[in-house]
Amino acid sequence: MDLPIDMQHQAMGYDRTATMFSPEGHLLQVDYAEKTTRLGSSSVGMVCSDGIFIVADKRITDRLIVPKSANKIYEIDSHVISSVAGIISDARVLVERAQVLAQQNRITYDSPIEPELVIKEISNIKQQFTQYGGARPFAVSMMIAGMNGNKPELYASDITGNYFSYTANAIGENDEKLKEKLREKYQSDLTIKKGLKLVIDIFKEIQGDKFDLDRFEVSYINKDELKIQKFEGSELENFAK
Amino acid sequence: MDLPIDMQHQAMGYDRTATMFSPEGHLLQVDYAEKTTRLGSSSVGMVCSDGIFIVADKRITDRLIVPKSANKIYEIDSHVISSVAGIISDARVLVERAQVLAQQNRITYDSPIEPELVIKEISNIKQQFTQYGGARPFAVSMMIAGMNGNKPELYASDITGNYFSYTANAIGENDEKLKEKLREKYQSDLTIKKGLKLVIDIFKEIQGDKFDLDRFEVSYINKDELKIQKFEGSELENFAK
Amino acid sequence: MDLPIDMQHQAMGYDRTATMFSPEGHLLQVDYAEKTTRLGSSSVGMVCSDGIFIVADKRITDRLIVPKSANKIYEIDSHVISSVAGIISDARVLVERAQVLAQQNRITYDSPIEPELVIKEISNIKQQFTQYGGARPFAVSMMIAGMNGNKPELYASDITGNYFSYTANAIGENDEKLKEKLREKYQSDLTIKKGLKLVIDIFKEIQGDKFDLDRFEVSYINKDELKIQKFEGSELENFAK
Amino acid sequence: MDLPIDMQHQAMGYDRTATMFSPEGHLLQVDYAEKTTRLGSSSVGMVCSDGIFIVADKRITDRLIVPKSANKIYEIDSHVISSVAGIISDARVLVERAQVLAQQNRITYDSPIEPELVIKEISNIKQQFTQYGGARPFAVSMMIAGMNGNKPELYASDITGNYFSYTANAIGENDEKLKEKLREKYQSDLTIKKGLKLVIDIFKEIQGDKFDLDRFEVSYINKDELKIQKFEGSELENFAK
Amino acid sequence: MDLPIDMQHQAMGYDRTATMFSPEGHLLQVDYAEKTTRLGSSSVGMVCSDGIFIVADKRITDRLIVPKSANKIYEIDSHVISSVAGIISDARVLVERAQVLAQQNRITYDSPIEPELVIKEISNIKQQFTQYGGARPFAVSMMIAGMNGNKPELYASDITGNYFSYTANAIGENDEKLKEKLREKYQSDLTIKKGLKLVIDIFKEIQGDKFDLDRFEVSYINKDELKIQKFEGSELENFAK
Amino acid sequence: MDLPIDMQHQAMGYDRTATMFSPEGHLLQVDYAEKTTRLGSSSVGMVCSDGIFIVADKRITDRLIVPKSANKIYEIDSHVISSVAGIISDARVLVERAQVLAQQNRITYDSPIEPELVIKEISNIKQQFTQYGGARPFAVSMMIAGMNGNKPELYASDITGNYFSYTANAIGENDEKLKEKLREKYQSDLTIKKGLKLVIDIFKEIQGDKFDLDRFEVSYINKDELKIQKFEGSELENFAK
Amino acid sequence: MDLPIDMQHQAMGYDRTATMFSPEGHLLQVDYAEKTTRLGSSSVGMVCSDGIFIVADKRITDRLIVPKSANKIYEIDSHVISSVAGIISDARVLVERAQVLAQQNRITYDSPIEPELVIKEISNIKQQFTQYGGARPFAVSMMIAGMNGNKPELYASDITGNYFSYTANAIGENDEKLKEKLREKYQSDLTIKKGLKLVIDIFKEIQGDKFDLDRFEVSYINKDELKIQKFEGSELENFAK
Repeated sequence: MDLPIDMQHQAMGYDRTATMFSPEGHLLQVDYAEKTTRLGSSSVGMVCSDGIFIVADKRITDRLIVPKSANKIYEIDSHVISSVAGIISDARVLVERAQVLAQQNRITYDSPIEPELVIKEISNIKQQFTQYGGARPFAVSMMIAGMNGNKPELYASDITGNYFSYTANAIGENDEKLKEKLREKYQSDLTIKKGLKLVIDIFKEIQGDKFDLDRFEVSYINKDELKIQKFEGSELENFAK
Repeated sequence: MDLPIDMQHQAMGYDRTATMFSPEGHLLQVDYAEKTTRLGSSSVGMVCSDGIFIVADKRITDRLIVPKSANKIYEIDSHVISSVAGIISDARVLVERAQVLAQQNRITYDSPIEPELVIKEISNIKQQFTQYGGARPFAVSMMIAGMNGNKPELYASDITGNYFSYTANAIGENDEKLKEKLREKYQSDLTIKKGLKLVIDIFKEIQGDKFDLDRFEVSYINKDELKIQKFEGSELENFAK
Repeated sequence: MDLPIDMQHQAMGYDRTATMFSPEGHLLQVDYAEKTTRLGSSSVGMVCSDGIFIVADKRITDRLIVPKSANKIYEIDSHVISSVAGIISDARVLVERAQVLAQQNRITYDSPIEPELVIKEISNIKQQFTQYGGARPFAVSMMIAGMNGNKPELYASDITGNYFSYTANAIGENDEKLKEKLREKYQSDLTIKKGLKLVIDIFKEIQGDKFDLDRFEVSYINKDELKIQKFEGSELENFAK
Repeated sequence: MDLPIDMQHQAMGYDRTATMFSPEGHLLQVDYAEKTTRLGSSSVGMVCSDGIFIVADKRITDRLIVPKSANKIYEIDSHVISSVAGIISDARVLVERAQVLAQQNRITYDSPIEPELVIKEISNIKQQFTQYGGARPFAVSMMIAGMNGNKPELYASDITGNYFSYTANAIGENDEKLKEKLREKYQSDLTIKKGLKLVIDIFKEIQGDKFDLDRFEVSYINKDELKIQKFEGSELENFAK
Repeated sequence: MDLPIDMQHQAMGYDRTATMFSPEGHLLQVDYAEKTTRLGSSSVGMVCSDGIFIVADKRITDRLIVPKSANKIYEIDSHVISSVAGIISDARVLVERAQVLAQQNRITYDSPIEPELVIKEISNIKQQFTQYGGARPFAVSMMIAGMNGNKPELYASDITGNYFSYTANAIGENDEKLKEKLREKYQSDLTIKKGLKLVIDIFKEIQGDKFDLDRFEVSYINKDELKIQKFEGSELENFAK
Repeated sequence: MDLPIDMQHQAMGYDRTATMFSPEGHLLQVDYAEKTTRLGSSSVGMVCSDGIFIVADKRITDRLIVPKSANKIYEIDSHVISSVAGIISDARVLVERAQVLAQQNRITYDSPIEPELVIKEISNIKQQFTQYGGARPFAVSMMIAGMNGNKPELYASDITGNYFSYTANAIGENDEKLKEKLREKYQSDLTIKKGLKLVIDIFKEIQGDKFDLDRFEVSYINKDELKIQKFEGSELENFAK
Repeated sequence: MDLPIDMQHQAMGYDRTATMFSPEGHLLQVDYAEKTTRLGSSSVGMVCSDGIFIVADKRITDRLIVPKSANKIYEIDSHVISSVAGIISDARVLVERAQVLAQQNRITYDSPIEPELVIKEISNIKQQFTQYGGARPFAVSMMIAGMNGNKPELYASDITGNYFSYTANAIGENDEKLKEKLREKYQSDLTIKKGLKLVIDIFKEIQGDKFDLDRFEVSYINKDELKIQKFEGSELENFAK
């Protein structure tokens, strides 16, 4: 029993179901699913003085794939967007749930849904899949960016269904490195334009030679226009200058 | 078989489900979940001569996170507040249940719910998740502080769903140390102001160099006003003097 | 295979579910749950010439806990009381079931429930949790003391749901020692007052230096008054003389 | 693999659920439950020329227990009695089912139920608990003695739900020894009085020094009176002479 | 891994549930249940020129058991009889199902059920218990003998629910030896009387010293009378001559 | 770990449930069930210029069994027949389902069902039993031969529920050898008469000394008559010449 | 523990259910099912300037099988076709679901379904079978080719339910080699005729000596005609020139 604690717990089987605590009080299957989200492609969201945006690295370069079909930024409603990291089909289930929720809100209350209600619903669903047996957790990190009235708000939720509100955040591959840079350089008075430039520069720095603007897509919502603007590939060159 | 009894029980698998007793009569999964709550951030509640309060260490210092979104003190109703330690998303499920319960009470009986009814409902739910298979226990310690008429009452419930009424109590990281200090220094004639000063001093003493008032939040209810007052970060400096 | 039979059965896994018989015909999970009840605090019930009482050792000395909230004697109806040993939250489920049953009896038959109906219902529930899979047994020993008309009756039920009627009985820590003393000294012509004195003396003898009258509570029902009288801590000094 | 076949089957796990056949075609969990019934206290039933009776050894000598509450002979209806061996709480479930069945028969057909219908229903329930997973078998041997019109009938059913009609039978501790004696000495022209004397003598012989008439109870139904007569403890002395 | 294939499969656990195929394509739990039926007492059925009969060895010699209650031949309807081998309580479930089916047929179609419909229904139920998990197979071989109009028909079904029509057949202990003799000596022009003599002689030959006519019972249906005739014990002496 | 890959997978347990893929992407329980079908008796179907037929080897020679009751060719409807290999009781479930389906088609559409609809339904049921847990696959290979209008069609489906249309096919024991011969000698202009002769000759060749025409049965449908003709045992001698 | 990581994970059992993450965050059962699809026969789809097509290698050469019944290209609706690789019976379930969906769309909206709605529905079903326990994933890769108005669209979905839109794609055996060639040679201005020639040439190159045009089938939809054209075997010779 001189194995490191991780391997001991693997050997003891504490990591076989999402509903079992390890002797240290961890849910190891949840930790493993968390790794899956880190295998996913990265995206960064930012609250700016004049709105909010998400930049996503689609990371797909197969020329047989129609680029738009590999988009990682989803429209939840005309004022809310989302990006995901992890198993794409898992994410689609959650995105579709969010879209339905937003539509129900419009029909029931005749008003746009608050972005936090979206992340809370998604997070509650995620929580259930870590507490009840018979299914595996959703292997998805999810960012929700949207307008609460004319206040831009950014949320992100992890595997367990914990969520926070962020000024800026990153999910997927290299998330920690990206957040480190954001902590360093984010200013609340950044405009969308300047923020986008900043994020693209951060990606350049972190990805080095592998950086390829063509793989990226951007969606932003301007406080005054209140509609989603989308750009991808070569259209992004203006933002990168 | 010369292993210590803990490791023997792990090797024998008595700690794999929350519905299995060890030969000593323990529910080991419940013990492990208890550890999870000790990994959570601390909060202290106190019954005072002029009301009741909870002080919570949010422990989050990531400047990308919007501080308010990391609050650990929840409003259950206009006269009841709650703090939690453990898995936040598990706690959210219970907090939302408590909020609904309080609203139902107002609608059904046209009067504010007694705080004990809230803790009892939460505790009953917790108990079920330690007795029935197919799900894991809620990894949450929960404090409920509120006014029963104009009598301040403080309750806390553990993983199993045991709960007691307290004059003062602590949950989360360092809970035992915090309670030791409270046992030593708590007086029933403390005012909210003096109680808060006492608790902040205790946190200072226990956390030492790591103490950072900016990470703390406070909610209190004054017997006479009967409404929740909230302060956090720099707003707390008055209380700390 | 020279292990003692207990350890053989543990190694063979006969003690992993409450629904498996060991080769000797035992339900080992039930035996383990039984141990849990022996870890609980003690209480003693007694049928007297002039009524019935329960004495309970709350065993809790944490001055942060409001003493009343740690009471171990529950009121089931105005003529029936109960004490429990084991997991308190498990017990609460059964106590609440008993309270509802008593109320239903009053509503349906317009008369106070017979104490035996209460213990039978509780015991039937317990039995089910030792026969059906998917849940663990209730780790609770339960005493029911009450008036059947003006006849005082005392019942106790174990984990399996076996129950008997007693003249005097003890559950929880030291139950066997307490019962040994009761067998020796119980007389059916004891009055409540003398019986209480006897039981407190027995506790003193068994607990020795650890005995602390302040931790005790008493509830009794006098045949003629037919209502529950409660005393605890210092109020008990009269009975102890 | 030089272990005896029993231990081989234990090591192979054929004895872990009631729904698994061993390679020899046995249901080992059922065999284990059978042992539980042999740990229970004994009772003997007998068909006589003038009626039918059951004699039961309550085996409980704890003076704190109210003797009547430890009775092992249950009244199913005014013309049917039953005794059990095994887990008492399991037995109570079956006895209550039998009582309901008897009442339903009276209501539906306005006539007393035939004793065989009672044993058949009980046995069918038992059978199901040995065929379907998710629960354990009822660890109960059960005797049913009653009048079919004015014909006395005695039945007994084992764990699997097999049942036969008997002229005389024994269940519980020492059942085989008791039956051996009954085979030797039973005569169909025995009266209740003589039969009782015979059975008490058999118990005396088998239990030797441990025999204590005070622990016994008797219920009989006389063909002509058609009502249940009960005696216990010292009341039995007449029968023992 | 030099174990014989049987022991290999046992060691590998292919024989633990009725819903698992061994690498050779066998259902081993079904094979084990088959053994259980061979432990049961024997019976022989025969189609004769003037009707049909079943002879059953009750094999029970306990003089405490009322012989009729140990009968192995059941009346399904006034024109259909059945004998079983294996677990008697399992068989009773199937027999009762068959009786209900026969009654339903009379009510729905106002005519006696065809014997094949009975065996098919029983066999379909058996098949389900070898294909679906959560329960064990019925450990019962079953013979159905009856009149289809005035044509005598004999059927037998095994554990899996396979069934065939037979001219003569045996189930239970020594079934193979009995069938061997039947293959040798059965003639389709045998009358019931001669057939019975033949079968009793076969039993005598196979059981040798253990043969005891008193343990046997016979039911037959004469083509012309179309009603069931029953004989047992000493009543059989005429047939044995 | 120098075991052959098959034994490795057995040791690793990939072959314990039908819902688990081996590392090579196989469903091993399905492969084992496939073996069961090869243990079954053989049958051959053929599409001819003037109709369609199935020849089946009943393989049963027990003279106690009524030959017709061992038939392996089932009538699904007046224009569709079926033969099976594997567990007969499993097959009966599917045959009965097919018969109901055909009747429903007649009632709903007032026309005979297309044979492909029959095989598709059967195959869909089979597929489900290889995808969902809690039950074992149907261990049955099934051939369906019938008329689609006046076009003869032959289908066969395996354990997984794959099915194809065939000009000629064999299932059960020796299926590969039979198909090898059919591939060699089948001509689409064979008449039923010539086709039958061919198939019987193939059986003779493959079974050698064991060949016994008496064990065989034939059903055919002539394009012009559109009704099923059945022959068995000695009636087949004309076809064999 | 010097085994390669794959074998370690196999030994640890991370690859036993589709709902368990490995410590690296993978779903190994899904990976194994993916291998099954690679064992299936290949097909290639392509979006062309004048429409869309799928070419499939049926790979079946058994002359007893009616070629059409082994087709791998399914008609979902008059404007949508599909090809599959993997377990054919699994695929049939999904194809039938797609056909129903397309019909429902026509009935509900009176218009042809968009091809993406088809792949999304199929993919959502697949996702569920990788997240919920009690069943295995669909071992099917699926291509959907169809017209969205007069825009040709090609989609493919993997085991997990991830899907993308493609200009050209391959599934089944040799999929990576086929895609490599397509990446090299695909041009968006290819006509159906030229595209087909290209794909057949690629198959020739990859399959070498094993190439046999007779095993292939083609379905295409011309933008202007909007109906499905099918060719197979020798009919394909024109396209191959």
